[in-house]
Amino acid sequence: MFAELLTIGDELTRGEIVDTNSAWLAAQLWDLDVAVRWKTSCRDDEDDMRAALAAATARADLVITSGGLGPTEDDLTCEIVASAAGAPIAIDEAARQKLELFLASRGRTVSEVNLRQARVPAGARVHANPAGLAPAFEVALGGVPVVCLPGVPREIYAIWEAGLRARVDELRRSSGAAPRIARRVYRIFGRAESQLSEALRGLVDGYPGASLHYQVKFPEVLVKLVVRDPDAAAATARHDELDAQLRARVGRWIYGTGDDPLPLVLGRALLDAGVRVAVAESCTGGMVGALLTELAGSSGYFVGGAIVYANEEKVRQLGVSPATLDAHGAVSEETVVEMAKGVRARTGADLGVAVSGVAGPGGGSADKPVGTVWLAVDGPGAATRTFRMQWPGARDQVRTLAAWWALELLRQALPPSASEERP
Amino acid sequence: MFAELLTIGDELTRGEIVDTNSAWLAAQLWDLDVAVRWKTSCRDDEDDMRAALAAATARADLVITSGGLGPTEDDLTCEIVASAAGAPIAIDEAARQKLELFLASRGRTVSEVNLRQARVPAGARVHANPAGLAPAFEVALGGVPVVCLPGVPREIYAIWEAGLRARVDELRRSSGAAPRIARRVYRIFGRAESQLSEALRGLVDGYPGASLHYQVKFPEVLVKLVVRDPDAAAATARHDELDAQLRARVGRWIYGTGDDPLPLVLGRALLDAGVRVAVAESCTGGMVGALLTELAGSSGYFVGGAIVYANEEKVRQLGVSPATLDAHGAVSEETVVEMAKGVRARTGADLGVAVSGVAGPGGGSADKPVGTVWLAVDGPGAATRTFRMQWPGARDQVRTLAAWWALELLRQALPPSASEERP
Repeated sequence: MFAELLTIGDELTRGEIVDTNSAWLAAQLWDLDVAVRWKTSCRDDEDDMRAALAAATARADLVITSGGLGPTEDDLTCEIVASAAGAPIAIDEAARQKLELFLASRGRTVSEVNLRQARVPAGARVHANPAGLAPAFEVALGGVPVVCLPGVPREIYAIWEAGLRARVDELRRSSGAAPRIARRVYRIFGRAESQLSEALRGLVDGYPGASLHYQVKFPEVLVKLVVRDPDAAAATARHDELDAQLRARVGRWIYGTGDDPLPLVLGRALLDAGVRVAVAESCTGGMVGALLTELAGSSGYFVGGAIVYANEEKVRQLGVSPATLDAHGAVSEETVVEMAKGVRARTGADLGVAVSGVAGPGGGSADKPVGTVWLAVDGPGAATRTFRMQWPGARDQVRTLAAWWALELLRQALPPSASEERP
Repeated sequence: MFAELLTIGDELTRGEIVDTNSAWLAAQLWDLDVAVRWKTSCRDDEDDMRAALAAATARADLVITSGGLGPTEDDLTCEIVASAAGAPIAIDEAARQKLELFLASRGRTVSEVNLRQARVPAGARVHANPAGLAPAFEVALGGVPVVCLPGVPREIYAIWEAGLRARVDELRRSSGAAPRIARRVYRIFGRAESQLSEALRGLVDGYPGASLHYQVKFPEVLVKLVVRDPDAAAATARHDELDAQLRARVGRWIYGTGDDPLPLVLGRALLDAGVRVAVAESCTGGMVGALLTELAGSSGYFVGGAIVYANEEKVRQLGVSPATLDAHGAVSEETVVEMAKGVRARTGADLGVAVSGVAGPGGGSADKPVGTVWLAVDGPGAATRTFRMQWPGARDQVRTLAAWWALELLRQALPPSASEERP
């Protein structure tokens, strides 16, 4: 079964935004064993959209479009798909009511412009949009299902989860050619793709239908293990065997499996362990705290902390000694140890994590080049653990990596049972 | 003049990487007034690549491909383009020498696999690649120039700068139809696309060659005003006139023009004004500090602050009164005022900004539903300014919007000359 993706919008063809939607959809479809053969982007242009739809429906078994469902006159997807299907345009009643409620909560009423977002081709299958106002819809063009999604990424994710994934799986099964797939995604932070591919070299040799795929998703790397077989039990058995071998080789680097990135995995582990955390941040400016509060319910493990960009704040808020700052500088093992101890003592948290580095592009020196970051975790019991990170990259990369290293050090500071990955 | 972009590779159609190359190339071409009409991605598949090339050369005046020029057997671009051009494959002598030198510096000699990277269709125009080993090349297929680039982004940037930009400009000029363009991007935070399009309705009516484009780039909206005219002076004059009218209608909402988002624009304004800022963050957990430190040189205006997720930290770090918390709750105007005053007084900053809200999905109540966020800015002089934000969205959206509102309130607190947009 082949799918084709069509992303619509002048902002794409003018290069104003990067098309992340088609990559995300392609990865989801790949997970359902639906291969994407073509991805096309075109302008908000009636003729081009018609031509793109005709080409896609001529060569694919499933077409998914994104974009062109908004309220403005640029948004033409509904008109063009309806006219290709020979259907008039209708207002989706559920979407209209949702729009009305939304606007009423802001003291506004539905205008004609607003109402454009509730349009669908008459008779279309409507896919609920839990994250937005414009409904997604599906019509058949020349016997090929065409699913039209809005262009906003989080709305696409929500529509996919709410029912589109199941619908595509249903289409795939009804298409006949449907081998069973066993798969797992392993998430790893702190190792390069090349290290992982060397460590896993030859893993799937001699296992029919098995493959390994790498995806760099800065700052982490995802490894995907897939086994295809006409027989579901055979696929699972072979996958289990390979899973054990993979963990034997790189298991100590895996922080989790599945969809959740490190901030959420760590947050749950902290909750489970009943451990409360505080942060002391210099070059990251608050990024560690921001990541630690991504999980709903983070007040169960996150106390707060200090953003100490200026050295005087390191002294005032955390009790870092001016002599330490003078002797070793703000970016030093000695300073981050005092920061971590200081924030833990003052907040009463179980763990205190500290970050101080040279994010760049200025401020580097011979012994502390741009990209040098010191981190420390202080907890009960043994000595404060420290880590020196070095990354020869741009300011935003250095800061993001430093913030993730703070999380990784917290994870390593937890008892194994609490930081264990979840299935 | 229309261009078409073709990006090649299984990693694209499987969604393992996001196609940033086509967005980057499209933006460069747009700046040369070469409009991209189609962007296509296909697999490393001979038939699909042939079909994609045939479709592109049939409808475009210029085709640029990226990918498929590496040393492996998956890399088919050279073969397919050469065969479409009816040319044999040749080794580019300059590329071969470069390869030889590179490998010699590593104590290695050129193998047959290595040499694949030096291949070009015989007779092709070669574009130097200052950042890599595979040369880019250009052939004409059916009279349409087809430029083949490698897939590595930084190699594409280097090839573009080294000569491809000039070559495309030459092609554009020789194509005759080269209208001049005047354009500007206006950046707005805190207003919806629909509000803006209503406020600007009819603006360009009666102005030939003028158009308005909207782009939602959460949490902000970009408005682009474009005027095309064969005469550069006429385009500029009409653009200036429309610019004045646009500012008369929505000018008070515009925080800047150009490429820089609010964190960078505000950072520069704070530097110019010599104003130092501290943050007091609850529901944003450090996001405001993280945004304020995106600009290199942020130590010139950012002192630091307090992350006070737990109520005890609001009391301990900022001196918020337990009575205020009891009477009004952590999410209240009274609490954020005390937070802003507290952080300003304790850090000695010129401005203190505070945020406390219900990010959700839990924790809402009838009078403070999920998405309710109180903000305050305390400064010298007049009363502390407060703002209540209400957004019925997901946790990450509520937090991002709250953090941007903190920046927007800081911007509004600056003297107009300092917060003024830059051209």
